[in-house]
Amino acid sequence: MSEIPLSHPRRISLETRAKLTDGVRQGITSFDGLIAHGRGEAFDYLLGEKTHGFAERAIDAAAALLISAKHAVISVNGNAAALVPRELGALSEILGKPLEVNLFHASRDRELKIREHLLVHGARQILLPDEDFVITGLASNRRFVNGQGIYRADVIFVPLEDGDRCEALIQSGRKVITIDLNPLSRTARAATITIVDNIVRALPLLLDRVKAPLEDLLKDYDNSRTLREAEAVLRDRKSMEFKL
Amino acid sequence: MSEIPLSHPRRISLETRAKLTDGVRQGITSFDGLIAHGRGEAFDYLLGEKTHGFAERAIDAAAALLISAKHAVISVNGNAAALVPRELGALSEILGKPLEVNLFHASRDRELKIREHLLVHGARQILLPDEDFVITGLASNRRFVNGQGIYRADVIFVPLEDGDRCEALIQSGRKVITIDLNPLSRTARAATITIVDNIVRALPLLLDRVKAPLEDLLKDYDNSRTLREAEAVLRDRKSMEFKL
Repeated sequence: MSEIPLSHPRRISLETRAKLTDGVRQGITSFDGLIAHGRGEAFDYLLGEKTHGFAERAIDAAAALLISAKHAVISVNGNAAALVPRELGALSEILGKPLEVNLFHASRDRELKIREHLLVHGARQILLPDEDFVITGLASNRRFVNGQGIYRADVIFVPLEDGDRCEALIQSGRKVITIDLNPLSRTARAATITIVDNIVRALPLLLDRVKAPLEDLLKDYDNSRTLREAEAVLRDRKSMEFKL
Repeated sequence: MSEIPLSHPRRISLETRAKLTDGVRQGITSFDGLIAHGRGEAFDYLLGEKTHGFAERAIDAAAALLISAKHAVISVNGNAAALVPRELGALSEILGKPLEVNLFHASRDRELKIREHLLVHGARQILLPDEDFVITGLASNRRFVNGQGIYRADVIFVPLEDGDRCEALIQSGRKVITIDLNPLSRTARAATITIVDNIVRALPLLLDRVKAPLEDLLKDYDNSRTLREAEAVLRDRKSMEFKL
C-alpha cells in the first residue's frame, strides 16, 4: 500500500481506495469493483462520511435478524473481501454461519484468491458457488450458489449487492440484509434491511452488535423509514459543505 | 470491449465503463482513475445524466476562451484519453493548439502509451511533461509540464482536473477550463470555467462550438451562477427519480 501522510485530510478515504487497488493487484477485486467503489464514495461524501442514526438502527436490526436466522449466510464479493476481510471472518465465527464467495464477474481464480485472502484474515467457514445450485430469475454469474450456503439460507447478508440479485433473492422468499450507500438504488429498496453506510464503518459496528443479547436488539424496524431518512440527509445542505 | 445488449437501460454508462476498464488493460488508465470515474458517475446520476443549460453555457464560454487564447493547451489524463481520444485530437486540430499529457500518478510508460493512443485516434500535436518545467505550489507529479505547452500557456483546458493542480494553475495567473461533475469540488470552485457535465457528452458539444465564429459565442459568463444552478439540480427531487 502506498504511503498516505497521517495528516492528510482525506486519509481514511485514500486508505480505503488503496485497499481496493491492492485488491486488484492481488486478483481479489475487479476493475468494475473500483468503479462501483467510486460511486459509493460520492454517496458517502454526500452523506457526510459518517454513520447516521438510521444506519445504527439498521445495524441493530440486522444483528437481530442474523442471530435469529435458521440458516444465515454472509455473501462476499471482491470489494468486501478487500475492504473488511478480518471483520467478515470474525462475524462468521461469532455467528457460527458461513461466508460464501459470490461474484458478479465470473472467475474461479478470483473466487479461490478471495477464499485464500479470507482464510489468511481469520475466516474458517468459506463456501464457493456450485453450478448445480441456481437462484432462479438471474442471468449473471451471481445465480450460482452453494447448496449448503445461500441455496438453503433463509437470511443472507450481502454487503455490496447488485439490484438484480437482491430482487431475485427477495422474490425467492429469502430475507436480505445489505449495505448500500445509495438509498435510492434498487438494492436499497428491495432489501429487507438496508444499512446506508460505508462498509468500513458499518462492519465493525455490526460485529459489536451481534455480541449483544438478542433481547437488547431492535424489535421494531422499518426499512422504508431508514431509506426516507437517508434520502433526506442526501438532500440536506449541511452534509454537502466539505469538499472532495 | 465486452458485449452490452443494445436494449440495456444503462448501456451508455456501461459502455463508458468498458472504455475505462479497457483503458486499464491497455496501460492508459490507472486503477485510481476507475475509482474517480465511479465517483463522477454518481454525480452524473444525481444530475439526471443529461447536459443541462448551465453546462451548455459553460461550453459556449469555454469555446470563446479557447479560441481567443494566446497559448491554449489541452491537458490530457488517463481517463480523458480512454473516453474521448478522437474528440481530443479533433479539438486540438481545429484549434491548432497542442494536447499535453499530464498524469497524477507518475508513469513514463503510461505517458507514452497515452501519446500513442491519441496519435492512433487522429491527434498530431502531443506534448509530454519535462522535469525542467515546474508549476510551483504543487507536490504531485502533475507539477511537471512541457515548456512549450502548459508552462507558457495562458489558458489550459483540463477535463478531469484535481483540486490541488487547479488551484495552483489559477494561482499562477493562468485561466483554467475544466469538466467536473461535482459542482462542490475544489476544482469546480477554483476554475475559471467549470463545465458540470459528463466528459463523453461535453466534448462533442465543445467540438461543435469551437467551430462557431467568435462573435456568436458567449460574452458574459458567470461561473458562480453555473455552480449555483448545478448544485440546485443536484438537490432537486425529480433528477433523482430513476435508479442505478
